[in-house]
Amino acid sequence: MSCIFCKIIRGEIPCVKLAETAKTLSFLDISPTAKGHALVIPKEHSEKLTGLSDESLADILPVAKKVAKAIGAENYNFLQNNGRIAHQFVDHVHFHIIPKPNEEFGLGVGWPTYPTSKEDLAELGEQIRSRLQ
Amino acid sequence: MSCIFCKIIRGEIPCVKLAETAKTLSFLDISPTAKGHALVIPKEHSEKLTGLSDESLADILPVAKKVAKAIGAENYNFLQNNGRIAHQFVDHVHFHIIPKPNEEFGLGVGWPTYPTSKEDLAELGEQIRSRLQ
Repeated sequence: MSCIFCKIIRGEIPCVKLAETAKTLSFLDISPTAKGHALVIPKEHSEKLTGLSDESLADILPVAKKVAKAIGAENYNFLQNNGRIAHQFVDHVHFHIIPKPNEEFGLGVGWPTYPTSKEDLAELGEQIRSRLQ
Repeated sequence: MSCIFCKIIRGEIPCVKLAETAKTLSFLDISPTAKGHALVIPKEHSEKLTGLSDESLADILPVAKKVAKAIGAENYNFLQNNGRIAHQFVDHVHFHIIPKPNEEFGLGVGWPTYPTSKEDLAELGEQIRSRLQ
């Protein structure tokens, strides 16, 4: 009930709306990290990506594409964070479209190397596949 | 023709496959930044998100959800990069599912503040919406 994005969806809090469908809303981020930083959110409330219905999920990327085209950035990141340690600060799934105009603004990407081997990956793949079936 | 991900899709280069549909393939990243780091890619070749068909786009997130559930990370980032400066190094759209187990591994997020105002955002929203119509 107190979810800030649900309030935006219901029109109880204003937003700079960019696009809307029956299942999805897109608006400008009010704390942008680059000019044109936008959000695309499902109207269905879920804290994390894994909690959403396939119907909500299937609608998001076609909307994101249209919005990204209209923003018009040549280089951009598409990012969705799950959990505080993963940089999620509103507990309603939201996808960021973040233009990357230069080194100063937009998403900064840190990419540490996790040590692994072909054998590790083959074993891990088997474990994950077993949980998919 | 020489796209490495198209070769993986055609089976000319091996991968540790996790899931596959008519339009989408998921496999483990061979240079992980955390244990369980996986990719979800459209079979349709496009360098950037904005070049894909809606049909390809609509299939990706339902597959990503299933894979993320099977990976089983509590905290994770979902990321797709467009352009070298935005950290894209294979020119075929790919979505990363990156577990964030601790501060050491997984995606590092830099988030500079872009200076803006309510008035700036309202004007920018109008410009973007005009390009959507």
